[in-house]
Amino acid sequence: MKIQVLDTTLRDGAQGFGVSFTEHDKRKIIKSLDALGVDYIEAGNFALEEDMKIFDSVETLALTSAEIVAFGATCHPYTSAKDDEALKRIAHTDVRCVSIFGKASLSHVREILRTTPEENLRIIRDTVLFLKENGKRVFFDAEHFFDGYSDDAPYALSVLKAAEEAGAEVITLCDTNGGMLPDIVGMVTERVKELFPNTAIGIHCHNDLGMATACTLSGVLAGASHVQVTVSGIGERCGNANLSTVLPLLQLKMGYQLIPKENLEKLTATARYINEVANRSFDESEPFVGGSAFCHKAGMHVDAVNKNPASFEHIEPSLVGNERNTLISSLSGRSAIFAKLREIFPEATKTSPAVSAAVERIKALEAEGYRFEDAEASLTLRLSETWTGKDQNKFFELKNFRVMISESQNATEPMCSAQIKIAVGGADEITAAEGEGPVNALDLALRKALTRFYPSIAGIRLCDYKVRVLDSGSNTASKVLVRVSTTDNSTVWRTVGVSPDIIDASWQALSDSMVYFLEKQGL
Amino acid sequence: MKIQVLDTTLRDGAQGFGVSFTEHDKRKIIKSLDALGVDYIEAGNFALEEDMKIFDSVETLALTSAEIVAFGATCHPYTSAKDDEALKRIAHTDVRCVSIFGKASLSHVREILRTTPEENLRIIRDTVLFLKENGKRVFFDAEHFFDGYSDDAPYALSVLKAAEEAGAEVITLCDTNGGMLPDIVGMVTERVKELFPNTAIGIHCHNDLGMATACTLSGVLAGASHVQVTVSGIGERCGNANLSTVLPLLQLKMGYQLIPKENLEKLTATARYINEVANRSFDESEPFVGGSAFCHKAGMHVDAVNKNPASFEHIEPSLVGNERNTLISSLSGRSAIFAKLREIFPEATKTSPAVSAAVERIKALEAEGYRFEDAEASLTLRLSETWTGKDQNKFFELKNFRVMISESQNATEPMCSAQIKIAVGGADEITAAEGEGPVNALDLALRKALTRFYPSIAGIRLCDYKVRVLDSGSNTASKVLVRVSTTDNSTVWRTVGVSPDIIDASWQALSDSMVYFLEKQGL
Repeated sequence: MKIQVLDTTLRDGAQGFGVSFTEHDKRKIIKSLDALGVDYIEAGNFALEEDMKIFDSVETLALTSAEIVAFGATCHPYTSAKDDEALKRIAHTDVRCVSIFGKASLSHVREILRTTPEENLRIIRDTVLFLKENGKRVFFDAEHFFDGYSDDAPYALSVLKAAEEAGAEVITLCDTNGGMLPDIVGMVTERVKELFPNTAIGIHCHNDLGMATACTLSGVLAGASHVQVTVSGIGERCGNANLSTVLPLLQLKMGYQLIPKENLEKLTATARYINEVANRSFDESEPFVGGSAFCHKAGMHVDAVNKNPASFEHIEPSLVGNERNTLISSLSGRSAIFAKLREIFPEATKTSPAVSAAVERIKALEAEGYRFEDAEASLTLRLSETWTGKDQNKFFELKNFRVMISESQNATEPMCSAQIKIAVGGADEITAAEGEGPVNALDLALRKALTRFYPSIAGIRLCDYKVRVLDSGSNTASKVLVRVSTTDNSTVWRTVGVSPDIIDASWQALSDSMVYFLEKQGL
Repeated sequence: MKIQVLDTTLRDGAQGFGVSFTEHDKRKIIKSLDALGVDYIEAGNFALEEDMKIFDSVETLALTSAEIVAFGATCHPYTSAKDDEALKRIAHTDVRCVSIFGKASLSHVREILRTTPEENLRIIRDTVLFLKENGKRVFFDAEHFFDGYSDDAPYALSVLKAAEEAGAEVITLCDTNGGMLPDIVGMVTERVKELFPNTAIGIHCHNDLGMATACTLSGVLAGASHVQVTVSGIGERCGNANLSTVLPLLQLKMGYQLIPKENLEKLTATARYINEVANRSFDESEPFVGGSAFCHKAGMHVDAVNKNPASFEHIEPSLVGNERNTLISSLSGRSAIFAKLREIFPEATKTSPAVSAAVERIKALEAEGYRFEDAEASLTLRLSETWTGKDQNKFFELKNFRVMISESQNATEPMCSAQIKIAVGGADEITAAEGEGPVNALDLALRKALTRFYPSIAGIRLCDYKVRVLDSGSNTASKVLVRVSTTDNSTVWRTVGVSPDIIDASWQALSDSMVYFLEKQGL
């Protein structure tokens, strides 16, 4: 059975704390969702000037499969839709689908809208009819439907009836406050489907009880055939139902048809890309698409997954474009290290002496405090070094660096600078840089020195930098672990450094990130 | 109806990506969970030397309501529990409750454990009996129970029977892979409860389908009376059921009894505090306890909430210790800040203009990235400064400091030194120190300079130092948050610093720690 997907990242998602999209962001997100194959992209609110830019130029988006949907309110009580400025404007655009929200809760009609039950029905009817007459396809979002149904079911149902009779082709039941339980959503949706057998029923859930996914599933099982979701569940308060959870759940686990089958493997890349565009750090624990979703840490679990992946995985990760990722940590053993080594050197066999050497090396580094679970690039370099027997990278040699930080009562800010000298082939390069902190200064100086020899270094940038103190029982002389993520704008790699000195630990991680990049380029 | 809460943040949570706890962290987390009123705290795996430290000294925790639970495996096939080193060790500790996990899936018994179905039952029986004979209360975690039940229900049930007959008082059904749907969890749990009416049934869910909360609720509705959760759902892959979602959901929405009623309002502060101790950035969109959970962005929604809070809120936020709107942290509410201020200055009244000034000051600092949950000493100093109107501490004045780090190919280690000049009264003191890292060098230099004037400084030492990067979306120029704990061997106080420069942030925290100590001494 086909379930329509309406993504509302750009409308309801934009209500999220700290979320805002430029028009350029919106266009990128729309293109990406279209390529994924969702049916509808709710691209904004037609009452907002900002959002009208997309609606005024919808043909320039050149979409292949998705329809753009404009969201907005009914006309005001005691006014006519045909005189409503926002409705008139959207009616005259090329946007083909319009979502109108109206109040389905009698107490909201009285207390918030402050009008009569009849007038609320009239403005819904008038608005839907006006848009239909102007050639639009109309979707109706019944705001606070579930609360309204508990409050006064006949009235809530009469709201749906008004929208359906006026020509709405989808009627979406919204748990606007996010306080509904899946069982209630299921029961109520089933009743609505019985009463409105010929209209598509939509379901729009919020995550205030941590159950947006479960409620959406309940709605679909009860007969809803249209789901409203946002990327990573971005949205007001605790967010909305998550596109990248709902999609594979319904399609892979429940056998519904949401997007073209072959597109499902784009899901991980799409979710990550849209988070990147939205300038959000991606939650690696996200179901299906997170970097940890198929990650195995405990020694016993790793062993079991190597014996049979299904033992600790509920689906094959590649179905959603994700990967199995075995965390290397003090909890994991020889089999995990061997598996990783074979990814890099397929000729490795369990009995290669280098495998034992690699296990020894990694265990020794872990004993010093290194953690490779979030640093596959450093792990790859260490394994390559053991395999090839070459400890020194072939790209550059550090002669020395010096970092200085000074602070005084007269200066408004501390002063940080770094000086570095490296040798590449026979040539020395000495340079310096100032930064917003000592690590920033060192990073800038190293890049500056390397770019002379390797211009492609200019195209990479640090995208994450984390510090953790090891053995925190002791004092500032404790070791610190520094993790760095670097990107060339298409992939991200992670490196690690450990030292009692944060600058030294940062140096290791920064240096690894450059070496890994240069290795990858085959230089 | 009473539902037992077992928090497994320190055991299953520790399997999460990038999660690790020092022993000191663990003790803080245990104290905080005990104060919240959970029944059981699963504090680690008794096979790990690291975790045994807690189990060997369980009486030093001085818990008021919670029991410590040690988690671990059965003995190996074809061996006896009484000869198992780990089981013997835990049997001889003062820990009263032990959780034993065993395989409930026949295919896992054959493929992963590689033994016979009968031998699996025997080792479970033998292990539970051995612990019971040694006076322990035993809980049994049936690993992969739901998968095992689909696979071969009679065998899965015979595993539970073996554990029950041997004396396990709780039998927990684990969705180890996290791939179960709430309906199935409900149906299977109901059947188990029918067959085991006299044993408490537990439910342990993972979030791989985004449904850990929904599955936990289904289990409880079907008769489970013991829930296993972690703080913020920290855990392997996509994490576990979230303590701060499950608790209020079951207690406030469903009417079950989990923790003492009056403790529920500690929930927000507890969740934040434990995330802070775990050095994790808190997810502000978390249901119930997140800063956005009762935050209203859309103009219309804010207006509706002002007319009637219930219009966009599913519960009254104060029930879980949270607040409506613009919440930055658990402390940022006016009432929390006033309470803290009155602790220091009992003469403060709600209408004192300094209260508003203090609220403004703390909110402004929080907006810059400061977090005071685990830094009461810095909070006290900031409040005192606002109250007295004196920004400069009376003990010393920093003239300047300079920190240098250098590394070269010839030196075996990096060289770090700090030079500092302070003024006390009319006297200047300039001194320098070398350290194992720049912060250590600065710390030593500051102490050295202060000790001349305040000899008691020699008796204090740093006992914890943590760094976290804020705004992790960007690069090494991001701000860092530094937290320092200092002790005089009888008490511990905590301070915080924030800056783009880690040395500057460390300076703030170090300097606060000295000033707080000198203030406390009444100097």
